[in-house]
Amino acid sequence: VNFYFFDNRENKVREEILLNRGNLYGDGFFTTGIVKDGKILHQNRHFERLQNTATKFQFADYNEDLLIQFLLDSLKDIDEACIRITISRQQAGRGYQYNQLSKSDVTVQLSHRPEAPVEPCHLVLSETPVSVNAFLAGSKHLNRLDSVLASRQIKSDNQEVVLFHEDNVIGGSRSNLFVLDNKQWKTPSLEMAGVEGITRQRIIELMQQNGIPVSIEPITLQKIQDVEAAFITNSLLGIWPVSKIADKCLETIHVENLKSDINFVV
Amino acid sequence: VNFYFFDNRENKVREEILLNRGNLYGDGFFTTGIVKDGKILHQNRHFERLQNTATKFQFADYNEDLLIQFLLDSLKDIDEACIRITISRQQAGRGYQYNQLSKSDVTVQLSHRPEAPVEPCHLVLSETPVSVNAFLAGSKHLNRLDSVLASRQIKSDNQEVVLFHEDNVIGGSRSNLFVLDNKQWKTPSLEMAGVEGITRQRIIELMQQNGIPVSIEPITLQKIQDVEAAFITNSLLGIWPVSKIADKCLETIHVENLKSDINFVV
Repeated sequence: VNFYFFDNRENKVREEILLNRGNLYGDGFFTTGIVKDGKILHQNRHFERLQNTATKFQFADYNEDLLIQFLLDSLKDIDEACIRITISRQQAGRGYQYNQLSKSDVTVQLSHRPEAPVEPCHLVLSETPVSVNAFLAGSKHLNRLDSVLASRQIKSDNQEVVLFHEDNVIGGSRSNLFVLDNKQWKTPSLEMAGVEGITRQRIIELMQQNGIPVSIEPITLQKIQDVEAAFITNSLLGIWPVSKIADKCLETIHVENLKSDINFVV
Repeated sequence: VNFYFFDNRENKVREEILLNRGNLYGDGFFTTGIVKDGKILHQNRHFERLQNTATKFQFADYNEDLLIQFLLDSLKDIDEACIRITISRQQAGRGYQYNQLSKSDVTVQLSHRPEAPVEPCHLVLSETPVSVNAFLAGSKHLNRLDSVLASRQIKSDNQEVVLFHEDNVIGGSRSNLFVLDNKQWKTPSLEMAGVEGITRQRIIELMQQNGIPVSIEPITLQKIQDVEAAFITNSLLGIWPVSKIADKCLETIHVENLKSDINFVV
């Protein structure tokens, strides 16, 4: 345990970071992607999602142009990496209320790009629920304790945990879910919970462009244990075929076919 | 906007705080109270709640004895202050999954004790929903975007916003709620959302000790606009009488009588 002690009453210590509302309340949002040759893959989609979230959460000083310039400079010598961009509000005063003029902090962190998994994915059903909030749903905000707690069930590299709201599957702890049900691809609606992933959106568009029907609709716990195929998606993994949901085994050939039908690349 | 850039791949920069999962995911919990003459008021209740939350969230290295010793030393010369104690998990690696051996950070922050409000409280109905998660409900964890967003509606010092899950009131953005309905005091159940406040628990016990019936039960949106009296509670405010809920005015005499009947002091 490290102990930090700050007496903010006398302004003796000005610890910008610990006075950040990201740390105090999870008041912020982020995105995760891959850097290749100095650029973030699909960066316009990342910037668009960040801008939309900044507007929704009233981050008045969020400035896309400054961020793009900062990344251009910072990433120019980076061949390949995993990137996380976090935008969080600075604290002014005490308490939940924020000033609409509050400044924000942008934190960019690089880590090694994870290797693509060799084995297909085993989906485990979460024992803890997804957090439900119709206003927050879809946004990649910093309140992610539901994913943190669900990920306790991940015991090996080829596992992912799927979370539920009542009887409806929302997605994986770090991914979106697609299933093939009655020869129709489906992905859960995210109106009450979950994150609208950039890869999820890309795949929906690629399927539409290639004339492959896909629908966004509620998918029940019973249903996902009775599908023909499934895969999960995120910006780091791309498409990860699922070979097992709980105790039910699945063939991955449908997913491999889909990947080639839509010419998917991460 | 401040920009921070950390390349964690090479271990060039070891920025403990930004690698903290409190900042990354809201993976942590906290408590807020009042320091008087070097001690936290009702500190055993704060320590008990912190310990319970540490156990629930698997903060394996949480150590109450070390915390108590640290506070004894740090607070010995403090006459009066507001205190926040935050416990958050350190990050090891990347991603939501945590190591059960992860170390934690304890951050203690002092600020000026807020003055007790002179005016009674006006309750405003929240336009944004409470976050619902049966596992997280009751805990004072760091995922507080619902309170942050609801507190946008607070326009003056005498206001508080009440949040709802579907048709049921949960509590204020920074407080618990009690209402007098048909001559019976009631407070919302917190099984799906909300924070189990220390002052809420103290008041329930004081009422029970003084033979004043109080029940924990669902309270609907319709019901709270038709009660005889109401007050909100937290560790800083104590009991704050409510004189208005939405457009409905309330007398505060019932609350003043209750305060003296149970000999309540902050």
